[in-house]
Amino acid sequence: MKNSHYKINFLPSEVTVDIEEGKTILDASYKGDLFINALCGGDGTCGKCKVILKSGKIDSMPTTHISAAEVKQGYVLACRTKVVDDLEVLIPEESRLDKSQILVSDYPQFPGSLAAVSLGAEQFKQNPLVSKLYLELSPPSLDDSMADYERLCQDIMVKTDIPLENLTTNFTVLKHLPAILRNSKWKVTATLGYRGPSVEVLEVQAGDVSANNYGVAVDVGTTTVVAHLLDLCRAETIDIEATYNSQIKYGDDYIQRIIHAEQHDAMDIMQEVLIEDINHLISTLVKRNKLSIHDIGAVVCAGNTVMTHFLVGLDPTNIRKEPYLPSVSFIPSLRAAEVGIKTNNQGLLYTLPCVGAYVGGDITSGVLAIRLDKAEALSLLIDIGTNGEIVLGNKDWMVCCSASAGPSFEGSGISCGMRAAKGAIEKINITKNFDVNYKTIGDTPPSGICGSGLLDCLATLVRSGVIDRTGNFQKGIDTDRLRKTDNGYEFILADKSETATKKDIVIMQADIQNLIRSKAAIYSAISTLIESMGMDINNIEQLYLAGGFGNYLDVRSAITIGMLPDISISKVQFVGNTSVIGAKMSLFSKDAYEVSRAIASKMTYFDLMNNNKYMEEYISANFLPHTDIEKFPSVVEELKVS
Amino acid sequence: MKNSHYKINFLPSEVTVDIEEGKTILDASYKGDLFINALCGGDGTCGKCKVILKSGKIDSMPTTHISAAEVKQGYVLACRTKVVDDLEVLIPEESRLDKSQILVSDYPQFPGSLAAVSLGAEQFKQNPLVSKLYLELSPPSLDDSMADYERLCQDIMVKTDIPLENLTTNFTVLKHLPAILRNSKWKVTATLGYRGPSVEVLEVQAGDVSANNYGVAVDVGTTTVVAHLLDLCRAETIDIEATYNSQIKYGDDYIQRIIHAEQHDAMDIMQEVLIEDINHLISTLVKRNKLSIHDIGAVVCAGNTVMTHFLVGLDPTNIRKEPYLPSVSFIPSLRAAEVGIKTNNQGLLYTLPCVGAYVGGDITSGVLAIRLDKAEALSLLIDIGTNGEIVLGNKDWMVCCSASAGPSFEGSGISCGMRAAKGAIEKINITKNFDVNYKTIGDTPPSGICGSGLLDCLATLVRSGVIDRTGNFQKGIDTDRLRKTDNGYEFILADKSETATKKDIVIMQADIQNLIRSKAAIYSAISTLIESMGMDINNIEQLYLAGGFGNYLDVRSAITIGMLPDISISKVQFVGNTSVIGAKMSLFSKDAYEVSRAIASKMTYFDLMNNNKYMEEYISANFLPHTDIEKFPSVVEELKVS
Repeated sequence: MKNSHYKINFLPSEVTVDIEEGKTILDASYKGDLFINALCGGDGTCGKCKVILKSGKIDSMPTTHISAAEVKQGYVLACRTKVVDDLEVLIPEESRLDKSQILVSDYPQFPGSLAAVSLGAEQFKQNPLVSKLYLELSPPSLDDSMADYERLCQDIMVKTDIPLENLTTNFTVLKHLPAILRNSKWKVTATLGYRGPSVEVLEVQAGDVSANNYGVAVDVGTTTVVAHLLDLCRAETIDIEATYNSQIKYGDDYIQRIIHAEQHDAMDIMQEVLIEDINHLISTLVKRNKLSIHDIGAVVCAGNTVMTHFLVGLDPTNIRKEPYLPSVSFIPSLRAAEVGIKTNNQGLLYTLPCVGAYVGGDITSGVLAIRLDKAEALSLLIDIGTNGEIVLGNKDWMVCCSASAGPSFEGSGISCGMRAAKGAIEKINITKNFDVNYKTIGDTPPSGICGSGLLDCLATLVRSGVIDRTGNFQKGIDTDRLRKTDNGYEFILADKSETATKKDIVIMQADIQNLIRSKAAIYSAISTLIESMGMDINNIEQLYLAGGFGNYLDVRSAITIGMLPDISISKVQFVGNTSVIGAKMSLFSKDAYEVSRAIASKMTYFDLMNNNKYMEEYISANFLPHTDIEKFPSVVEELKVS
Repeated sequence: MKNSHYKINFLPSEVTVDIEEGKTILDASYKGDLFINALCGGDGTCGKCKVILKSGKIDSMPTTHISAAEVKQGYVLACRTKVVDDLEVLIPEESRLDKSQILVSDYPQFPGSLAAVSLGAEQFKQNPLVSKLYLELSPPSLDDSMADYERLCQDIMVKTDIPLENLTTNFTVLKHLPAILRNSKWKVTATLGYRGPSVEVLEVQAGDVSANNYGVAVDVGTTTVVAHLLDLCRAETIDIEATYNSQIKYGDDYIQRIIHAEQHDAMDIMQEVLIEDINHLISTLVKRNKLSIHDIGAVVCAGNTVMTHFLVGLDPTNIRKEPYLPSVSFIPSLRAAEVGIKTNNQGLLYTLPCVGAYVGGDITSGVLAIRLDKAEALSLLIDIGTNGEIVLGNKDWMVCCSASAGPSFEGSGISCGMRAAKGAIEKINITKNFDVNYKTIGDTPPSGICGSGLLDCLATLVRSGVIDRTGNFQKGIDTDRLRKTDNGYEFILADKSETATKKDIVIMQADIQNLIRSKAAIYSAISTLIESMGMDINNIEQLYLAGGFGNYLDVRSAITIGMLPDISISKVQFVGNTSVIGAKMSLFSKDAYEVSRAIASKMTYFDLMNNNKYMEEYISANFLPHTDIEKFPSVVEELKVS
């Protein structure tokens, strides 16, 4: 029997989706391109995908994430609710993912300019991975009967110093070259693509079109995908576009996605949805800037090792199995079309090289962006996302590690947590009298609390004495904001009268423990890495904070809770999305891309997962700021004074 | 209205072909894979495709090629006869092309061994274009977590000295590598393909299969395609197979084929039929030697510039238009599958580089084979086929040219001419008494006369006084063999009582003039080239004769008729099919392949088509041996004595 189909009308967007009987409301929302917050990937564990049923019958599984009061209002979990009728469904504000809020700028201080692509002292020579060269060939004669392709190569060699034997080409060029040369009266533009030791003549066009040379740099994140459109001729960033990584529906972190892919034989699908996201970004950028897709000759992607594998269609299975191996660290340049990315038909795809299973091309890109590999000063790069990657070193050596911080700083596993989007509390302060002041993104009524807000929250909770250094609520404090529920104690950050969701925004005891575990993972990774090199935090001369999270993070709060070691704030620099910065630098200069390869092979991966010292550090770090508060003299001072 | 279809039963092979009404008998024969001699490509001009109609009605166009007597016997031209009925058609012996008779050996003195591949002093190191390398990788551990591909490359680098940055690979390898490494317990065989500055890891297989490494060297001739199967591991020629170039149906020489392709928009078809021939050869070789097509990793083709263009699917149109330009001289290595050649899926196709429009990869290959580029002695290489290509030089310089000899030495345009196949008269002598002695290929009754026989014939006709030095029959000689027909005088070489065709084998006045024009073209090219360098024939220390023709050619006869200049026979060396020899050398050693590129760029092309001196020389050479017989002292002596 063929399954029936039903219509789901999603509110407030009024998008109607036709869906097969038995699929979930979450499935329907994806089909309608509506981003519902489903951090766990539809497992029913995160409880983020709450929607309100306005009409129609459903088949819903029981869940502890919906309170009795919410049941009355029609709340259901989209991922646990099967469609058996035509439905009208409201996606409440707190469950929506608002694409326009993704952090897209690279380095906010210098948006869009080439100056922004290098934070380090050394600028690379402009020398894009794919370049266009206008040539006026001398027409052949009986005395000069060199073949068409060799005639072209001769001129390329003279103009570029590329040795003849390193020039190669593809069949399409050879096929069309004779007609193009003759129709253009021997005046043509050659597109040259850097391919390791060779340079490929990717395309030959009639006339001078050397000014139409564009590329796209992409930060392929686990959560978001950010694309920068670059004018490779003028060395400028033209436009930026971002979207959520559609793989989110298969799991919030990449390990979940690998498992999903393994269990559902869905490696191809993982690639497809990611490529679709990238194609969508490129096509949006191209249309908005009235360009032709034909003029996009290169795409450079920086992503963690798993995203890089999915991107090119490689199986990342061994990444999660001891001894944790990628299939490949440095993927040779591919024809973009080979993986399904839509550019010029002969356009090339480059990926930033990975260091290992858990330190990917995004980190290599970051090191390139800040030129840590050229730094005189002993430097620490911390890129905080779902994972926290840490690089320690200078021009002489570099070690790196990755800590599985978990997604709590992205709002997952936290009752009122949400991603950094409009209405998220990003700064918060609790006074001695337990009054609460906060600031939301977009200055709208709050819908929840995002990573930087959670971190701030934890710090202010401890400073104000709401919790003690173990993270436990101080039951004796004099405020109505602390209340007991069936699930234990919770502290009200915003009353339902003032929120966008018309529900209280609270932090629960379990939330606090989750956050402490996350910060402990990052701290212990940093300290283990530093100590393993026989150093301590005082040896660090410069600390770079990267990642979407990093841009809004209150460093003082991060030290107070013991996520960052106790370092002088003057040594800390926010560097934004270094993943996309390094990708842009590579696109603008093949010398930079070559350096990225040298960086990846120079970095030593330090495994924490099987490190006893790390486990000890982690346990000690499960306090605020640490079991041994003497390691945080500034916090001793702060908590004494406050 | 849909056309009717008819059945043609071809005798004696009993092959039945189904064909549409209105197609010709020649079309039907191609459909049945029967090779009918049709040198003009079915234009009705060569008169070679005579067949005998045994039953059925036909629609035949008038032709002067069929005599009244032949009409009575049922003779028709296959190319001029349309099918309008079921037919029974006998292909007489003289019209058949016998595939088994194609010259396939390279250098008969040393068949099959690596020694045979280099005629020059210098042997190249065995270092095939595609090699297989057995590797026992150290399994990864937590302390050694290098990615799979980099682990492989590391070992390749150690074993081969190929720099890491020159190693590249393809997606298929990356995709399957993790599973292959683990299933094989890290013991694998890597196939490495030379691709200019890069080396591509073409394939990785489990276990040690490094001994299964085979390649095919192909001489892509205008008339025949010859393939040698090589064991690249043991550096041996295993087997040889040859076929006619199926493009023959579109014209006997390559200019005709270019015109056909232009007029019928049939460039693709030209490629298709050629690739089909090559695939057929490879598949026959593979089956006969019980190999797997999977083990064929490389194909090296040497052909003239037009064949090379057709092979890879490039338009050779500009080759026949002033200033006569190829699209490309050196084609970068391609995936064999890209052009449709069936090998290992990742197998590579290499072509020998061309010098110019009329001096192709077959000649570059020939220079490589005899190492003319390393010769101390001033040397002349003459490769005689439909075109005669000539190279003059030594280790310091090389010039080359091409003379359009026309196909008369391949039997075309000659009344009883045929290709060098079973039953062809290859040697002939006419005594003072006008008795005729001859030798046929295979020592069977004669069907016609092939190139070497025609050349011998011309020489013996002049020596015996049957013709004078202008080529005209001496009407007064006392023999019945000379007779007058409606088409002028002819000389009977073999009486119908002794021939396989039951018809007289004759040489006509027009035949002689055709042969004189052909030999004049070759001679004048040689002499113009030599004289343009300020030299004369006495400066030549070594003369190499290459090509299928060259193997059987009587040098004395060639000098007598003035095709070759008057040179001491001790300086002449037959070198066989140097085109395939050079291709084999390249396959066995990438150093040799690299040298071929250096050779092609070092050779200076000397254009004869617009050279006044050449035209003068050509006119002077339209005598036997030459207007100025003093240039041929040995012939003065010979004709005086004889």
